[in-house]
Amino acid sequence: MTSEDLILGIDFGGTKVALGLSDRTGTLRATRRLDTDAEAGAEQVVTRALAAAEELVSGSPLAAIGVVSPGIVLPDRILLAPNVPGWEELRLAELVSAAFPEVPVAVGTDAKAAALAEWTWGTLKGADPAVFLSLGTGIAAAVLVGGRLLTGANGAAGEIGYNLRTPQDADGFASGAAPLEEAVGGRWLGTRATALLGRPVTAGELFALARENTDAKELVASALDELSMHVANLAIAFDPSRIAVGGGLVRSADVLLPALRERLAAAVPFPPELVPARFDQDASLLGAVALALRE
Amino acid sequence: MTSEDLILGIDFGGTKVALGLSDRTGTLRATRRLDTDAEAGAEQVVTRALAAAEELVSGSPLAAIGVVSPGIVLPDRILLAPNVPGWEELRLAELVSAAFPEVPVAVGTDAKAAALAEWTWGTLKGADPAVFLSLGTGIAAAVLVGGRLLTGANGAAGEIGYNLRTPQDADGFASGAAPLEEAVGGRWLGTRATALLGRPVTAGELFALARENTDAKELVASALDELSMHVANLAIAFDPSRIAVGGGLVRSADVLLPALRERLAAAVPFPPELVPARFDQDASLLGAVALALRE
Repeated sequence: MTSEDLILGIDFGGTKVALGLSDRTGTLRATRRLDTDAEAGAEQVVTRALAAAEELVSGSPLAAIGVVSPGIVLPDRILLAPNVPGWEELRLAELVSAAFPEVPVAVGTDAKAAALAEWTWGTLKGADPAVFLSLGTGIAAAVLVGGRLLTGANGAAGEIGYNLRTPQDADGFASGAAPLEEAVGGRWLGTRATALLGRPVTAGELFALARENTDAKELVASALDELSMHVANLAIAFDPSRIAVGGGLVRSADVLLPALRERLAAAVPFPPELVPARFDQDASLLGAVALALRE
Repeated sequence: MTSEDLILGIDFGGTKVALGLSDRTGTLRATRRLDTDAEAGAEQVVTRALAAAEELVSGSPLAAIGVVSPGIVLPDRILLAPNVPGWEELRLAELVSAAFPEVPVAVGTDAKAAALAEWTWGTLKGADPAVFLSLGTGIAAAVLVGGRLLTGANGAAGEIGYNLRTPQDADGFASGAAPLEEAVGGRWLGTRATALLGRPVTAGELFALARENTDAKELVASALDELSMHVANLAIAFDPSRIAVGGGLVRSADVLLPALRERLAAAVPFPPELVPARFDQDASLLGAVALALRE
């Protein structure tokens, strides 16, 4: 692989698909975005994404392809990806390989790949252990120790969206619940804000409203109390030197980051640095590229 | 080092010091136990332990010495060991080296060393990731990935006794609190049981009483609810293949283990096996030996 080699990255998200053509320094030469339109089924998302990818590549030779998605991407299915309906049965690597024969394809979990991108080119460089927090529609974490991703025994390490919230929590993963994600994930925050305020409100709007509206403020405060407890306990478990925060909620960094930092300072024996991720929206996309480069 | 080499292990605990002379297969040839008598100061514990060690060794050549204690053992002090008064200022490695010149001395955290012993000779053999839970006076965890201990950036990984318990928890490590340990650690359970039942009761007695006494039963149930939530969230974070439970509370394994297993099954995407540690009382002592062998 030379410095001129091109890598195709594809990031399948709950609402958007991002495609990018990158060199091996993680510089995106061209990008494209599509709506996931998840309700129309999983295969159509992949078909449309691959058509867009072929346009983007337009015949240039590819050195490698990296593909990321929420969940655990196995050869014949995808586990733990409840936010993308129909995703479970998808043979993702096979579909991508069929469209780009002869190009090596790496697949992985979006949050873990984003951690790798931040560690390779972003704000987690030199951090050990390094934690990437993905706070968006889904809630997940990824940890690198000595620059190696901790995957766990089943690829499910860091899936903290399933965290229990109280000692009385009887409903967890086994009953189809994702307790922490349902309390502080972007989609659920939006749903609760919409119910509370009587009109459609996204999580981002909720954070903005919290500056003036008392109800919005209380909802944000309780979500941040909840989230920051789990982030503090995660930091206690891993003792990281730095945590980078990415995902949609980081657009409310002015409210989010101080709340997390305050709780880390109060609770963690050695409070880690907490920084916004460098790549914001593109973290998982560059993660796909980083994953392809590492294979 | 040959198979005939002897290794001295010393395990300083909150209430007891254990000493052992082991071969390199982890078989203890001789052991000794002393009371810590923590109130009388830290130096006297070490002095008495070293005198007992000299007696135990009685002139046999030593290949290595391993010493473990709660907390993070640094050259000039010990951090995070609130259960042993005066321990903070102790130059533990130096004192041991002075008593046994020319013998290499390894020092480490008891729960992490115990994890290493269970991974080398016990019930964590072959587990990856492997989690050791130490549930006694102190509450801590230790994790091995690929057979290597995760220490964290400051040696404090797994110190889950500091975990916050509720989103409203304002008092954590920074205010001298160890919220989870104060809720479910053996000493605190004993204190609460004593207050509840109006007579001196240890944590072990509390678990036994819970079979007939309603008050005791409720206290045990609430402690187990609390503990099992944190164990489940820890398993979600690391996705281990197996968890071994050691420490004093494991003597109530008949109540403890089913409660933990039930919660893991309900909450964790891939519930790990949960087993009692092999070495029970001697886990940290053999951990000291394992640590010495690994250096």
